[in-house]
Amino acid sequence: MVALRDKRVCIVGLGLMGGSFGMALRRARAVGEVIGVVRRPEAVQEAIDLGAVDRATMDAARAVAEADVVILCTPVRTIIRQMRELGPHLRPGTVLTDMGSTKTAICRAMAALPDGVQPVGSHPMCGKEQAGIRAADPDLYQGKTWVISPLPRSSEDAVRAVEALAEAVGARVIHLEPARHDRLVAAISHVPYLLACSLVAATDEVGRQDAAVWDVAASGFRDTSRLASSDVRMLMDILMTNRSAVLEMMDRVSAAFHHLRELVASGDEAALEAELQQIRQVREDHVVSPGRS
Amino acid sequence: MVALRDKRVCIVGLGLMGGSFGMALRRARAVGEVIGVVRRPEAVQEAIDLGAVDRATMDAARAVAEADVVILCTPVRTIIRQMRELGPHLRPGTVLTDMGSTKTAICRAMAALPDGVQPVGSHPMCGKEQAGIRAADPDLYQGKTWVISPLPRSSEDAVRAVEALAEAVGARVIHLEPARHDRLVAAISHVPYLLACSLVAATDEVGRQDAAVWDVAASGFRDTSRLASSDVRMLMDILMTNRSAVLEMMDRVSAAFHHLRELVASGDEAALEAELQQIRQVREDHVVSPGRS
Repeated sequence: MVALRDKRVCIVGLGLMGGSFGMALRRARAVGEVIGVVRRPEAVQEAIDLGAVDRATMDAARAVAEADVVILCTPVRTIIRQMRELGPHLRPGTVLTDMGSTKTAICRAMAALPDGVQPVGSHPMCGKEQAGIRAADPDLYQGKTWVISPLPRSSEDAVRAVEALAEAVGARVIHLEPARHDRLVAAISHVPYLLACSLVAATDEVGRQDAAVWDVAASGFRDTSRLASSDVRMLMDILMTNRSAVLEMMDRVSAAFHHLRELVASGDEAALEAELQQIRQVREDHVVSPGRS
Repeated sequence: MVALRDKRVCIVGLGLMGGSFGMALRRARAVGEVIGVVRRPEAVQEAIDLGAVDRATMDAARAVAEADVVILCTPVRTIIRQMRELGPHLRPGTVLTDMGSTKTAICRAMAALPDGVQPVGSHPMCGKEQAGIRAADPDLYQGKTWVISPLPRSSEDAVRAVEALAEAVGARVIHLEPARHDRLVAAISHVPYLLACSLVAATDEVGRQDAAVWDVAASGFRDTSRLASSDVRMLMDILMTNRSAVLEMMDRVSAAFHHLRELVASGDEAALEAELQQIRQVREDHVVSPGRS
């Protein structure tokens, strides 16, 4: 176990993810100090008032130079830009990690960091459709899966430090190669977002002819469409850095949807019912009661 | 306002919907007596113990003959069969309504009931993916929309009685023609179910190659796929009695999904971002904060 207690952790970007992480670290008294880097002057005091950081600053270069661990909690392409800008300011031995939603592009950029820096890709599997520090919650990471993608150059100590931070906020660590991570999250996150968007777009078409559609929408519609309320800027970075995996999964979902359409159209009740029962069982085994399967 | 206080209400089928309705009516002391019709002997005592009914029986013919209002809370095609079987046992003037998820087939069958019976189609817009009386909840209808589809033969008193029952359990009534109802619920309920199923089926394909996909699935996947855990028997009746509206909405969603796929594939970021922002705004206006729009 790496001793985190004396470490100074710098969180760059205090939105939902970074803000929640700072709150959780501070509540657990897991590290020596939490410094936050923000963009807006008024966010400095707000971050302190919300208990997300011990101190906050807009001077990213100076803050990362003081840190033992830097964690970039911004959209994927901002992370890549920040690594280029801030990399030269890091002291040798500084652990640099991130919360970016795709890992291939980020880990490729990490490989280009100055020699002394210790980069480790990471991605906690949680979130909310609300963005911003006001939606932050110190329990956000509790019981969640946190993916770590070490680079060939990552030292064992650096990997252990990131694991220890994840565990300090209650998450469960798994290791995945960047390409494998990106393929899996396309399936369970990026394409579900696009599905939710398609549902809202199609319902909007119906609603332009008959606005009562919105009066009958209940919790099933609300849940199935929830991801369509996600932060678009964050999603644009995700989609643009994971296009091939997203397109491949979109084609899988299209094929599955088309197959169900054919079964409904054919009126072959036995085949449709068998298919729907099997799908229900898959969700039962893997999502509802995964412990039992 | 119709006086419900002295009415005897017979709920046929004490699953999630019927059980919750009985609990809510009894808690509100809205009617004279609630009789439940169940299929299994052990369900008689269970329904009483859970507070869903004043008394319960397996003898449907006798129970409906005693009632002032009968509400059929079974799957759509069971409702149609029960109307044929129980119709001749109803006293003249008895109000017959239902909670069936599609209305065209049910209202057509209602038109064939014996002359003295007062049929009114209805459908409360709520539910859970859990089935059965053990998932029942007296707050299920609170604040929800309850669709009423009167027939040409429905008397004003019969329509008012069904409205009063809906309001007694906290629901908000709207009137919709059967075909219009079915078209709208295809959009916001039946096709979202099939979308959720397609997502689970496609993710299962990924999972057969790499089971870690289930480890990274988080709340976004859980919500988007939730409807795939719905009761298949209920859904089969829904899909088979609403095929044309379901197929039409499936095609709309497919077209919207294909359009997003093309935007992702093209890499036209401005067009993709504008589309996603507009979709987000639609959901904001109609689902998240409908009062403000």
